[in-house]
Amino acid sequence: MKKFDINEDPHRRYNPLINEWVLVSPHRSKRPWQGQNETISTIELPKYDSTCYLCAGNVRANGERNPAYENSFVFENDFAALKQEAIDFEENTEETFFKAQPERGISRVVCFSPKHNLTLSEMAVEGIVNIIHTWQKEYTDLGNVDYINHVQIFENKGSVMGCSNPHPHGQIWAQSSLPTEVEKTHNNLKAYFDKHGTNLLHDYLKEELKLKERVVVENDHFAALVPFWAVWPYETMIISKRHITKITEFTEDEVTAFAVILKQLTTRYDNLFETSFPYSSGIHQAPTDGEAHPEWQFHMHFYPPLLRSATVKKFMVGYEMMGESQRDITAEKSAQMLRDLSDLHYKNK
Amino acid sequence: MKKFDINEDPHRRYNPLINEWVLVSPHRSKRPWQGQNETISTIELPKYDSTCYLCAGNVRANGERNPAYENSFVFENDFAALKQEAIDFEENTEETFFKAQPERGISRVVCFSPKHNLTLSEMAVEGIVNIIHTWQKEYTDLGNVDYINHVQIFENKGSVMGCSNPHPHGQIWAQSSLPTEVEKTHNNLKAYFDKHGTNLLHDYLKEELKLKERVVVENDHFAALVPFWAVWPYETMIISKRHITKITEFTEDEVTAFAVILKQLTTRYDNLFETSFPYSSGIHQAPTDGEAHPEWQFHMHFYPPLLRSATVKKFMVGYEMMGESQRDITAEKSAQMLRDLSDLHYKNK
Ligand SMILES: O=P(O)(O)O[C@H]1O[C@H](CO)[C@@H](O)[C@H](O)[C@H]1O
Ligand SMILES: O=P(O)(O)O[C@H]1O[C@H](CO)[C@@H](O)[C@H](O)[C@H]1O
Repeated sequence: MKKFDINEDPHRRYNPLINEWVLVSPHRSKRPWQGQNETISTIELPKYDSTCYLCAGNVRANGERNPAYENSFVFENDFAALKQEAIDFEENTEETFFKAQPERGISRVVCFSPKHNLTLSEMAVEGIVNIIHTWQKEYTDLGNVDYINHVQIFENKGSVMGCSNPHPHGQIWAQSSLPTEVEKTHNNLKAYFDKHGTNLLHDYLKEELKLKERVVVENDHFAALVPFWAVWPYETMIISKRHITKITEFTEDEVTAFAVILKQLTTRYDNLFETSFPYSSGIHQAPTDGEAHPEWQFHMHFYPPLLRSATVKKFMVGYEMMGESQRDITAEKSAQMLRDLSDLHYKNK
Repeated sequence: MKKFDINEDPHRRYNPLINEWVLVSPHRSKRPWQGQNETISTIELPKYDSTCYLCAGNVRANGERNPAYENSFVFENDFAALKQEAIDFEENTEETFFKAQPERGISRVVCFSPKHNLTLSEMAVEGIVNIIHTWQKEYTDLGNVDYINHVQIFENKGSVMGCSNPHPHGQIWAQSSLPTEVEKTHNNLKAYFDKHGTNLLHDYLKEELKLKERVVVENDHFAALVPFWAVWPYETMIISKRHITKITEFTEDEVTAFAVILKQLTTRYDNLFETSFPYSSGIHQAPTDGEAHPEWQFHMHFYPPLLRSATVKKFMVGYEMMGESQRDITAEKSAQMLRDLSDLHYKNK
């Protein structure tokens, strides 16, 4: 009988953060593609767009005018999924199939730069440092609101990720409950901590740094790697090397190091298919419920949809929705491809 | 304080099948859309396409010629994610972050009809009956293979769902393990059965049939409804009224009734935006591990991506990937819209 070869044979890998498996089919990368291609805009964007509601000095849908901001700029989402209003609600303690509860929260938009045509990969490190300071301030301010227990910082980049405006920006949704994915991660980190007295991701990172095969880029304070259990073809995670539970614990050196690795990772992404690489990214860190959370380790996920080129994405559809996430190229192969790319942006070559 | 109104206020709903929540923002439906639009093909497809690898009599990528089939036709997927080969593997019992195991399986493609331009909504009931018989046969044959414990029947319809060929077809991925989503459902159905001695979905359906507000269409044997915890804007589920654990338990009356409701539901979908409505669908039913599974109830999920029109879809991106699934329109509103549509296909009006 053929001996199991993880680089060749179909297999499942286990994700200890969310207690789920992913199906890996390394032999399948050669599949021809006849399906939908994404359109990519090759239009050079201007530095300022008078019709953009995020550019400095422009008027938004609700009639408010953006200030002439020079670094980053934060405002309340005009079409927020969450509302701040307190709602009177009595929980039904009977067992029911119709379990619902009101949810309070605050949604904000974070403009990364007044320049309409800049993305993280092309920003100067100082500009990214400024965004990290903004995230720190928002995590603190929102976390201090009495009914807010979780602050989700994220970015949707590219129209294929539902982003309606190329102006560089991210969002923050802060709310009372731990969202489903965060709660799953929380429970698994907690169980590991209770069992071992150490931090799951911190221990995991130590092993990855010994093996190196899934590490894309690292510096003194952070590593970016393709997790062993990655689902998206070029999924990565940035993990802090020190045991840090939340972004407000960063030293100034760590702020700079995080800015550097963000720039390096997003530059490699752009270089992969010589395109402005789409992704959704998001920071996972300690809840803001006022408790200490030694089980948490600061990390940031990047979920990019592209598979083979700037226009062919991976579709997470039928089998993936009904059954299990599935990938073709292995995490090790993806990591190697990203690692072998230059830190110099292709536009500057 | 304002009293909680589920039709107006942001809230979370609980999905007992997978033990996850969904964030519902009813007030948000009025959000303007400036993002990516899907392109829809308005080309009338021919009944036969000489370049289609699924049409009767044509040659596939591997050189094999399809027979001159007249109803449905099943073949092994030429680029399967799973392989049938047995793999020698010794499980590592030590705790590790690198948990992987080989996975054996069989992938098949099911052509629904030799007609290149037919979809379920436009097929005659007899044609759909024939597909159901094919699914029964495949569930039995694949389920009987000694190492196969789960048979996932699904369909990706439309290029936006990663479907590379409009020829009407679905797929079957059968494998050794219960895939992640099925295992979650299995565990929750099992826990409910152990506690109550009855079937979760069967009990749920009874309540929905009393309330009616989320039911789209029903007949003597099946109901199609928007589940209380639906994630996709027009997500639905078809549930058998009798306690049936798997498709092979259908009586012939039930086969016909299932064909009828499949046609009615997909016709309403097409009528909603007067387009060939994209979706991924899949059947969830008892595992094929040779055990009795009284905790299981046959059901079929439909996850359609569209939100506002034939070209604007719901993006499940940053917040949804990092945090929690989110929807704007309520399940009740979607159900009403689908219920109010005609059973007559818009092309025949
Ligand atoms: O096998 P197909 O139809 O080529 O591929 C499609 O369905 C599969 C199963 O859901 C997915 O893994 C692929 O990403 C998708 O493109
Ligand atoms: O708020 P935006 O950028 O308009 O919307 C985008 O991100 C949100 C959060 O991930 C999603 O709910 C929307 O589906 C997506 O289009």
